[in-house]
Amino acid sequence: MKDCEFCQILRGEIRRYVVFEDEISLGFLDEKPLFPGHVLLIPRRHCPTLVDLPPELIRPLFFNVRLLSRAVEEGMEAQGSFVAINNRISQSVPHLHVHVVPRRPKDGLRGFFWPRNPYRSEAHCQEVQETLKGALQRLSREDW
Amino acid sequence: MKDCEFCQILRGEIRRYVVFEDEISLGFLDEKPLFPGHVLLIPRRHCPTLVDLPPELIRPLFFNVRLLSRAVEEGMEAQGSFVAINNRISQSVPHLHVHVVPRRPKDGLRGFFWPRNPYRSEAHCQEVQETLKGALQRLSREDW
Repeated sequence: MKDCEFCQILRGEIRRYVVFEDEISLGFLDEKPLFPGHVLLIPRRHCPTLVDLPPELIRPLFFNVRLLSRAVEEGMEAQGSFVAINNRISQSVPHLHVHVVPRRPKDGLRGFFWPRNPYRSEAHCQEVQETLKGALQRLSREDW
Repeated sequence: MKDCEFCQILRGEIRRYVVFEDEISLGFLDEKPLFPGHVLLIPRRHCPTLVDLPPELIRPLFFNVRLLSRAVEEGMEAQGSFVAINNRISQSVPHLHVHVVPRRPKDGLRGFFWPRNPYRSEAHCQEVQETLKGALQRLSREDW
């Protein structure tokens, strides 16, 4: 994609600090890291979100995510890591990218998983459960 | 694992609102959702973190993550989704689980990607780049 920032990085038109590359993906330092060592892994093939990732790329891309998680933990001497994908909302560049971020105790990111928005009742839980099961059933009938 | 909460869910000893299951994984509603429709997908095989996931499970597990992302977006009529894995830090249960969460504009989660912790200098970027490349090189020599 001509105007996609990440495709421009893949073509070498924009420079980034690359830490990983293989036939299907490229990993580089996020310019505005949550913490130093925050890597973005992108598929070479332009696809906007996870849902658009061709099935044959699922295994190689997430094999690399798993590898980078370990590299980020060991390389940055971090006790843990955070792997995240924003699809459309909070997604800065519409080219699928997986965040792999080193994590440490009390690093300040804890607040993120709050506030929670609880279910109103058991009936509300069941309603959401049925809604999602219905969506999955429809998807299973689709050629996708 | 006898005392693992998620293994207990898999054995039916703890009940949850299940929305998806197949041979290798189970998806159910998070009890304390970021937003209603927040699903946790877990592998049936007990593994603590992403790094511990056996390679042969990478494709089937993330195939299901991709499927659930679409189901959550379509089912909950959400414009986007958030996929996340906490490895050790912020991980409530030490059994790998992938969060799949519906997202909407201005839903209040935006703040999470802040504050950023910028690199001090170009030299700092290069140092981190070399550190991660070194870690990846070591890992490539390992049988893992």
